Amino acid sequence: MTNGKFITFEGPDGSGKTTVSKAVTKRLQEEGYKVIYTREPGGSAIAEQIRSVILDPKNTLMDGRCEALLYAASRRQHLIEIVLPSIEEGITVISDRFIDSSLAYQGCGRGIGMDEVFAINQFAIESYMPDKTIYLDIDAQTGLDRIAKGRDVLDRLDQEDISFHNAVFEGYQKVIDKYQDRMILVDATKDVDDVIERAYQEVKGLIDGTRES
Amino acid sequence: MTNGKFITFEGPDGSGKTTVSKAVTKRLQEEGYKVIYTREPGGSAIAEQIRSVILDPKNTLMDGRCEALLYAASRRQHLIEIVLPSIEEGITVISDRFIDSSLAYQGCGRGIGMDEVFAINQFAIESYMPDKTIYLDIDAQTGLDRIAKGRDVLDRLDQEDISFHNAVFEGYQKVIDKYQDRMILVDATKDVDDVIERAYQEVKGLIDGTRES
Repeated sequence: MTNGKFITFEGPDGSGKTTVSKAVTKRLQEEGYKVIYTREPGGSAIAEQIRSVILDPKNTLMDGRCEALLYAASRRQHLIEIVLPSIEEGITVISDRFIDSSLAYQGCGRGIGMDEVFAINQFAIESYMPDKTIYLDIDAQTGLDRIAKGRDVLDRLDQEDISFHNAVFEGYQKVIDKYQDRMILVDATKDVDDVIERAYQEVKGLIDGTRES
Repeated sequence: MTNGKFITFEGPDGSGKTTVSKAVTKRLQEEGYKVIYTREPGGSAIAEQIRSVILDPKNTLMDGRCEALLYAASRRQHLIEIVLPSIEEGITVISDRFIDSSLAYQGCGRGIGMDEVFAINQFAIESYMPDKTIYLDIDAQTGLDRIAKGRDVLDRLDQEDISFHNAVFEGYQKVIDKYQDRMILVDATKDVDDVIERAYQEVKGLIDGTRES
């Protein structure tokens, strides 16, 4: 049996990662592909407990390095409990965020530095990287404008100011540069149906041949 | 103003760390020393939330590396919120566990390796180490026998088997070897009042001259 693929969706807040990755998963499942959607931080019972600590709006005193370690902890548990067992069963895993988010948000957004954040993530994932990453390309301000319109409740990271989100955007540009072979850029400023279609085509191209007969 | 000292208590489960470190703190406070007791994992609101995730007996699927990252996250938050601000105010901090616990429990007990666990802890503490460490010296089995007698509810780590606790004990021996200048060994097989008296004398010797007038 062939292993499933490990495909991640990345992009700034408001880029549409969750909507698009869920829609792509659903469409592929309806066509008979063995695909699951999962998300970070979270995706397993323990990882979701860690997610609650990270995103709790009351935790305003959380230090940036503590936050980075919590993301790495959640990532590890999610990888071991969900991602790897699925892939070994031949199921393609679509993950809403993975290591690139930490490099951009904690490495650059929080100013800890990408190399240091990469090091604790290496501890977490032991060099297990995604096969491909769909990057939903949008500037920080456009993303934030969308969030302001669409969400009733903001979590701790949504509440950060524009300078934080600009730093995250810069971080993602470095990630794209560093991992050119892995990154597939999709213009996320377009209409959501167009973005889904484009992302769907890309993911389908990666997993073609794994459809259940 | 002189900074306070940072003194940690370490030792295998059942060595009496909590009882002894609390009793020593109380006695020194009564004598007018500026001393606080705190504990790991936990010690601040966010760190206590992380503690709950780590010790929840239901979280049997928790991976060793996830656990190590959670301890490091809790350590970071506790250091930033509690330990460093207190020390800067001239208060001596007595912490029930710190980095040595991770080196022994995750590095050796879980078999991840001390160097790897040290690396993520360096990220967490940025080279900020305790001034001195009181090590309560007891073998794994004697410690476990005490726990079996004394506790009604066992947490996730108490429930590990003897081979885990023996590996932790071996880990502590390596830590003692590596940090000889920092370690003060106290025989913890003795009567608890003797252990408290001996630990009290050691800590008092370290902080003499910091008493409030």
